Amino acid sequence: MKKAEDFSEWYNEIVERANLTDKRYPVKGMNVWTPYGWKIMQAMDSHIREGFDATGHQEVCFPLLIPEDQFAKEKEHIKGFDTEVFWVTHAGLNPLDVKLLLRPTSETAMYPIFALWVRSHADLPLKTYQLVNTFRYETKQTRAFIRVREIHFFESHTCHADFEDAERQVKEDYEILGLLAKKWCLPYKLLKRTDWDKFPGASYTVGIDTLLPDGRSLQLGSIHQYMENFSKPYEIKYEDEKGEHKYVHQTTFGMSERLVGAVVAIHGDDKGLVLPPDIATNQIVIVPVLAKGETERVSAAARDLHDELKKARVRVHLDDRDMRPGAKYFDWELKGVPLRLELGTKDMEKGVVTFVRRDTGEKTLKDRKHVVKEVRDMLALISKEMLARAAGEMEKNIVTVQSLENLPERMIRTGWCGGEECGHEIEVRSDMNILGTLVDGEKYSGACAICGKPTKTPVYLARAM
Amino acid sequence: MKKAEDFSEWYNEIVERANLTDKRYPVKGMNVWTPYGWKIMQAMDSHIREGFDATGHQEVCFPLLIPEDQFAKEKEHIKGFDTEVFWVTHAGLNPLDVKLLLRPTSETAMYPIFALWVRSHADLPLKTYQLVNTFRYETKQTRAFIRVREIHFFESHTCHADFEDAERQVKEDYEILGLLAKKWCLPYKLLKRTDWDKFPGASYTVGIDTLLPDGRSLQLGSIHQYMENFSKPYEIKYEDEKGEHKYVHQTTFGMSERLVGAVVAIHGDDKGLVLPPDIATNQIVIVPVLAKGETERVSAAARDLHDELKKARVRVHLDDRDMRPGAKYFDWELKGVPLRLELGTKDMEKGVVTFVRRDTGEKTLKDRKHVVKEVRDMLALISKEMLARAAGEMEKNIVTVQSLENLPERMIRTGWCGGEECGHEIEVRSDMNILGTLVDGEKYSGACAICGKPTKTPVYLARAM
Repeated sequence: MKKAEDFSEWYNEIVERANLTDKRYPVKGMNVWTPYGWKIMQAMDSHIREGFDATGHQEVCFPLLIPEDQFAKEKEHIKGFDTEVFWVTHAGLNPLDVKLLLRPTSETAMYPIFALWVRSHADLPLKTYQLVNTFRYETKQTRAFIRVREIHFFESHTCHADFEDAERQVKEDYEILGLLAKKWCLPYKLLKRTDWDKFPGASYTVGIDTLLPDGRSLQLGSIHQYMENFSKPYEIKYEDEKGEHKYVHQTTFGMSERLVGAVVAIHGDDKGLVLPPDIATNQIVIVPVLAKGETERVSAAARDLHDELKKARVRVHLDDRDMRPGAKYFDWELKGVPLRLELGTKDMEKGVVTFVRRDTGEKTLKDRKHVVKEVRDMLALISKEMLARAAGEMEKNIVTVQSLENLPERMIRTGWCGGEECGHEIEVRSDMNILGTLVDGEKYSGACAICGKPTKTPVYLARAM
Repeated sequence: MKKAEDFSEWYNEIVERANLTDKRYPVKGMNVWTPYGWKIMQAMDSHIREGFDATGHQEVCFPLLIPEDQFAKEKEHIKGFDTEVFWVTHAGLNPLDVKLLLRPTSETAMYPIFALWVRSHADLPLKTYQLVNTFRYETKQTRAFIRVREIHFFESHTCHADFEDAERQVKEDYEILGLLAKKWCLPYKLLKRTDWDKFPGASYTVGIDTLLPDGRSLQLGSIHQYMENFSKPYEIKYEDEKGEHKYVHQTTFGMSERLVGAVVAIHGDDKGLVLPPDIATNQIVIVPVLAKGETERVSAAARDLHDELKKARVRVHLDDRDMRPGAKYFDWELKGVPLRLELGTKDMEKGVVTFVRRDTGEKTLKDRKHVVKEVRDMLALISKEMLARAAGEMEKNIVTVQSLENLPERMIRTGWCGGEECGHEIEVRSDMNILGTLVDGEKYSGACAICGKPTKTPVYLARAM
């Protein structure tokens, strides 16, 4: 299946062929993390941990099961989730007194405890995060990593003395995200959602949206400002310097295994995965090209090359299986290894190693003596160019329009006066969802696509994956 | 509360005071992992990953929810668990067609998929593991880390061509465990359980038992030989070299957050935790002892000391808070930091650093110039001595008896003919559980405590924590 012809089928096929997940588990939308897929997820998790640890967040792990009465405390929140939670009603042979639900997200698990942890201004800011499994009873068609019912999930939850400090946290989240997305070679837009599309209970929601090759948007995560919406029902209060009791302001940041789906979808090609070097389980695969009578000499040289790179902490694999090099290339291209090093007698005579990039297919000869540096430089270059290419693709797929007639299957930028009625009408006429307005603003001068009123902030629309 | 006076109360208090977990979550037996407790658990998890990765196991992550019909396939297994599983019966507003249970352990989640993964002898051995949350509806009194309802769990699952290869795996498990327990300074006995006490579905079960200071045994984990007990109902078959189809033999190895409980219980003292150096979040805390007029000079020297140790990859923390050294000592003793380094003007004049061991309280002066080496040596010595002391305590608390009258609250070794009737009678008369016989055997010559028949293999008994 070709990516350009049927993106959706191509995606399903590549996920299966590269053995990133096993979808044959006997519950729909609950997939098995295979060793290869799980290693990629864990690499991304370790980047997340680094980013949040470095900014003073502390990792915690809260229980999965939430009592119904705790869940119901914030009214908007429960309304937003009541059709999509799983309920535990029995334990052993008996019904439970209080029903328990599997967390779809952890606000209602954490906040009763935050109310105990936060006492005084000295306890603030409270910056926590966790990496856990969450559950949503998706009724739409499921898709590996992108729409599943058990979700590997990252969520940070913070408490602040006031709105301004919570706003600083939101800005810090943008910065952390910037660093992470660079490692993952994922372009995105930070789009402030409309009021009718924000997270249940949030004061405002910022979607982290990327664009897939078929022109559909994919939400990679979201950042929320809650203000006092949760701290009031959960009574998370602190005593300030003057002895006054105040409610904390809260923020959250959530991302999920969709990140793996986005990497597959955006970078993969007809040969298979193309993994960003920072994520790749093996950054380098060495394939010795054995000639008759020279087998041992080439094998030994390949082993040396492997050891040298390994010592330099490059994630390298030597493929010394007894099979044709071509078959090995096929395997590692499917698996998405960023850089292949070929070594044959000709290379050895010239004192070089043949580098083959997975992303471009480009072949170059590099000096064997400086191989560690050459490999490092090349991996950095691949990473940089993968991101730049993906960002370029995304921008190319954003079309600015004045009218909502005959829209292409792309991301659409158009004028909106900001009124709710016009907003709904935009969604109806375009048959797309409004993703929102850029949080950083942008230069724009146009008119609302519905009422024609002049506006300086355009809105972004797309069909969601 | 003193450990020697009321071990149980002391344990509960120390867990709370050291802030290892928060038990105030509104579901009984489901506790919150606080940052400090979670870091300790993660350190142990990382050791587990190292140990299992190094022996060719691959990490996977299977879904949490298991359909009732899959769970019921192995009859003994479901009988063993049916009074202690949590049931998901509804999703959104509707009842589910097939009820789902929260994994108490993952045999029945994994094995339908193993049946798809294993095709030929080339797929064997299949060696996998996962670190996940599991659930058991405990009806006994819960206790932090030791008896909880949501359990942080490690489980390895392997498939082998035959019984012999599965037995080799069991031996490998013993070796991995040996390395891990050394890092954790935990002594244990490998005790083969009686037939009436083995894991539901197992051919045999080996308990990993340690002994707590109050004389009760604590099972840290278990290793199981399943033979074909699961592969038959789940149809995990492979084609051997001759084209014949055979059932695989399987083993598992499970451990849980109880490991944290064991470290607390065995090593802690009246001042707080005593953490083995390999587990400790901070291996070293530096406390500058500031004298009037010399504050800056001492602070700078403490900072240098910190930087030098950090560069040498020691996990070190500089406590430069504005409070009395004594109050800092109190804090870090509670937190269990293995080694405290004090630095004052007197130390500086002598060119030394004062080392204070957490486990023994012993103070020594060490040459400032060789501080990295001294710290490394001291941490290694602490680790070695913590294990030796704990192992000595355990042996001291094992009492060999001929008669089952007036047994002390210890681990008891006594003769058993091996007959089931005598076994039950031993348990009734001793009011203890038979833990089993040492897997490695031992020199012994005695008589069955019930029937008086001569026997060469003694059995171990204890009351379980």
